[in-house]
Amino acid sequence: MRHVISPLDFSVEEIGQLLALADEIIANPAAYAHKCAGKKLATLFFEPSTRTRLSFEAAMLELGGQVLGFSSASSSSATKGESVADTVRIVQNYADIIAMRHPKEGAAAVARQFARVPVINAGDGGHLHPTQTLTDLLTIHRLKGRLSHLTVGLCGDLKFGRTVHSLIRAMLRYEGVRFVLVSPRELQVPAYIRTEMEAAGADFVQVESLEEHIAEMDVLYMTRVQQERFANVEDYLRLKDVYILDAAKMALAKPDMIVLHPLPRVNEIAHEVDDDPRAVYFRQALFGKYVRMALILTLLEEAEARPGLARAELPAASDTLVCRNPHCITTAENGIRQRFVQTAPGRWRCAWCEHDV
Amino acid sequence: MRHVISPLDFSVEEIGQLLALADEIIANPAAYAHKCAGKKLATLFFEPSTRTRLSFEAAMLELGGQVLGFSSASSSSATKGESVADTVRIVQNYADIIAMRHPKEGAAAVARQFARVPVINAGDGGHLHPTQTLTDLLTIHRLKGRLSHLTVGLCGDLKFGRTVHSLIRAMLRYEGVRFVLVSPRELQVPAYIRTEMEAAGADFVQVESLEEHIAEMDVLYMTRVQQERFANVEDYLRLKDVYILDAAKMALAKPDMIVLHPLPRVNEIAHEVDDDPRAVYFRQALFGKYVRMALILTLLEEAEARPGLARAELPAASDTLVCRNPHCITTAENGIRQRFVQTAPGRWRCAWCEHDV
Amino acid sequence: MRHVISPLDFSVEEIGQLLALADEIIANPAAYAHKCAGKKLATLFFEPSTRTRLSFEAAMLELGGQVLGFSSASSSSATKGESVADTVRIVQNYADIIAMRHPKEGAAAVARQFARVPVINAGDGGHLHPTQTLTDLLTIHRLKGRLSHLTVGLCGDLKFGRTVHSLIRAMLRYEGVRFVLVSPRELQVPAYIRTEMEAAGADFVQVESLEEHIAEMDVLYMTRVQQERFANVEDYLRLKDVYILDAAKMALAKPDMIVLHPLPRVNEIAHEVDDDPRAVYFRQALFGKYVRMALILTLLEEAEARPGLARAELPAASDTLVCRNPHCITTAENGIRQRFVQTAPGRWRCAWCEHDV
Repeated sequence: MRHVISPLDFSVEEIGQLLALADEIIANPAAYAHKCAGKKLATLFFEPSTRTRLSFEAAMLELGGQVLGFSSASSSSATKGESVADTVRIVQNYADIIAMRHPKEGAAAVARQFARVPVINAGDGGHLHPTQTLTDLLTIHRLKGRLSHLTVGLCGDLKFGRTVHSLIRAMLRYEGVRFVLVSPRELQVPAYIRTEMEAAGADFVQVESLEEHIAEMDVLYMTRVQQERFANVEDYLRLKDVYILDAAKMALAKPDMIVLHPLPRVNEIAHEVDDDPRAVYFRQALFGKYVRMALILTLLEEAEARPGLARAELPAASDTLVCRNPHCITTAENGIRQRFVQTAPGRWRCAWCEHDV
Repeated sequence: MRHVISPLDFSVEEIGQLLALADEIIANPAAYAHKCAGKKLATLFFEPSTRTRLSFEAAMLELGGQVLGFSSASSSSATKGESVADTVRIVQNYADIIAMRHPKEGAAAVARQFARVPVINAGDGGHLHPTQTLTDLLTIHRLKGRLSHLTVGLCGDLKFGRTVHSLIRAMLRYEGVRFVLVSPRELQVPAYIRTEMEAAGADFVQVESLEEHIAEMDVLYMTRVQQERFANVEDYLRLKDVYILDAAKMALAKPDMIVLHPLPRVNEIAHEVDDDPRAVYFRQALFGKYVRMALILTLLEEAEARPGLARAELPAASDTLVCRNPHCITTAENGIRQRFVQTAPGRWRCAWCEHDV
Repeated sequence: MRHVISPLDFSVEEIGQLLALADEIIANPAAYAHKCAGKKLATLFFEPSTRTRLSFEAAMLELGGQVLGFSSASSSSATKGESVADTVRIVQNYADIIAMRHPKEGAAAVARQFARVPVINAGDGGHLHPTQTLTDLLTIHRLKGRLSHLTVGLCGDLKFGRTVHSLIRAMLRYEGVRFVLVSPRELQVPAYIRTEMEAAGADFVQVESLEEHIAEMDVLYMTRVQQERFANVEDYLRLKDVYILDAAKMALAKPDMIVLHPLPRVNEIAHEVDDDPRAVYFRQALFGKYVRMALILTLLEEAEARPGLARAELPAASDTLVCRNPHCITTAENGIRQRFVQTAPGRWRCAWCEHDV
């Protein structure tokens, strides 16, 4: 582990170590208050995200380090046509570690190929957001005492929500996790996630009603259902309240269930729920800071032990295939070759954005 | 005092303590250079303001603390529809104290209801800007040696200028303050300010000519008269030069008068005045930094002594009345109930933006 | 030296001292890690520039100082019509040294007239960018061991590139420097640069082919040729590849030639060149940080020794002449008088933007 691009870059053992280190930091923050003195974090946010950026910056400051960077592409050289690859090769002269958010899928994977300092993917379009998954895992582990033998409800838009997909894939690796997938039929998890759950022998159900199933859950992970995701207005009107968590539904839940949300929340959780002790989505932001502290520390130690480039091994460049994903970093950046992983005979997946061709 | 939303949140005694602390910091900055080591200030600026933001940031850095935040809504999660209430509940995980500027009136009052860390209102629309008033008071006190027994001229747009209203209300509480209110008839102070001055038994005059009255003043507080405030162009053309401070008018003033301005200045003070030793508007910015240092220190000490929520007591929520002020935070933010204070039989004032219904 | 507005503000001796100090910092960074403790750098970027801003911020942080500022005009008070002169007079209350980038030519020269703290010009429109020139000089000196007796190739748009003009003027002062100026005929260096080279007795050639001349060069300074600079499309299509540096052209160059570029690079250097050890444009960014550290240290020491205003002597204000350069700071800022230097009988040059009238 040198760069963090995907939530699956961590083994179960590595996640255990990160969460244990986060626990130590929570227990004794003073012992870590100067660990990164003289170190700098660059936050390269090509699109804005208050929460994620401030969480990274707070993490670095609480380790005694310093922060520089930009908070939107309009205040960066990207407006002059500078590539991600060049930006990273320049910024590594100014910082010891980079947290990068970019609107294009695969942007962080590109950065990894060129950076001599650790790169953390702080979100690449709708693709991956590994520190959100780490945040979710630390929150569950701190508040439930374990990551195994839990019934995890995921509610809302399960089709497009990257945080949901990442959390399912991460939790699949723990024993005895049961998933209750609550969504309108149009917004069920994609086929590849269902395939992965089946391959792992996981126990899961796909249901339409939160009300009927909330009582089973140890953890409820809420996400927003956007009107524009529905095929027709009637379906939206029929279903929208079904996926709003309110006090009435909370009354049906276990007394020790916890409610998570990747935030920002718009109206999918009623404000009356905020004061319920089971609503932990604001404390989640606190755990997000601690897990990022653990991550920064771990990556900087690893980089000190093994300096230099730490490129991923990539498949050979292709001159015939072209990734058709309009959000792929290859559509925006010259000098990045098309590369594909063969997933099955005659089937290929872009090595950058991981879309199937 | 835990949060600072309005200039009137301070008693006269508390203002005396803040100004005394600022004096101490000015006299011995080294003694305060590490007072906030390990603490973080979040500057949440939903609209830009260089001076105010940099003043807060410089204040925190000179106390040995650190700073994070955002400088415009476009680089914040507000673009994703996140509410002020949620933003504050998240950011308090990342910072020990919050300075917030927001375009909506009452936004800081909303933040106070949800924050476990101190919130300082750094300007909420055209409503309140308490640290500007503290800056004005420290400037006057440092340079005139007192806040009482002064003739204070206020010149320009006295109708819409929130800094003018705040300064009048703050100075009304000191003995022997006389106000010379210089403005075009259309831009006189609002009725409620006149009522307050009368209730306090203050000595004040409303005049149209700066030239005729500048000789009486110990303090002259300049503000800008914008063309669009005038009912017709003739009035504007007739009056615009009357409210421009130049060397000729300065020649009529006392040798120890001081000229303040909340800045930015556009053309209401001629550049020839800048080198006059009585022009203290740039030094005002320096006093603004020191008074913010005193404020941050005081609020952090208070928060340490009494942690947790420090909500204001609010009137009961109303299901019938609705605030009609288009700039009220209730127009922008779900989950904030309509609340009104009764000011007279049948008369109500919004508890958030303080507009009369 | 108190402010740095132009690359020619430095004597050859002062440049020698700065480069020597940068060498010392590179050799022993720990000895400088706390030199600026308690000091603050304000980065006032009225237009965005990631590289330059982050380089300044990293430099100050590595000296143990702190940073505040803004990264684009939209998040500054400039949107409220505040002048550069007023911004500087306010910000000097918050910071010990200012690095300013502004879209108008002459903006930094205006700032110098009003600032009691050192001002570094971090780029004023298409005019001057002295720290880029210092970066280029340090890079050449570190990697070639000298600034004299070198054949320096400059390739691309030599007409509009300010970094090219500055580098030529800076290198002209060293012995035995030969210039190979490679550009399309339309984009040759302006007449005044040719005049300066002739006056200095410099050896130079103006050629059209990079391929034919690359073998002569010790240093190759690449810049971009933009399509819109060409009079007609045919010329552009005929010439565009001529000015792209690729592996084939590199094969013709000396084994110890070095390639510099002010960055951002778009497509004028093929990506295949990036891994050539002679391609030093990314390391250039590292040297840029070190030379800025040397500059900040030197200016702060000088400011401590001689505090107060350090205005340049300016020619008398003119009431008849007006600068016609649409990018001149005088077109944007009230309160700046028109001032001109006589360059020849009947010929005048604006004292701010240095354009001939």
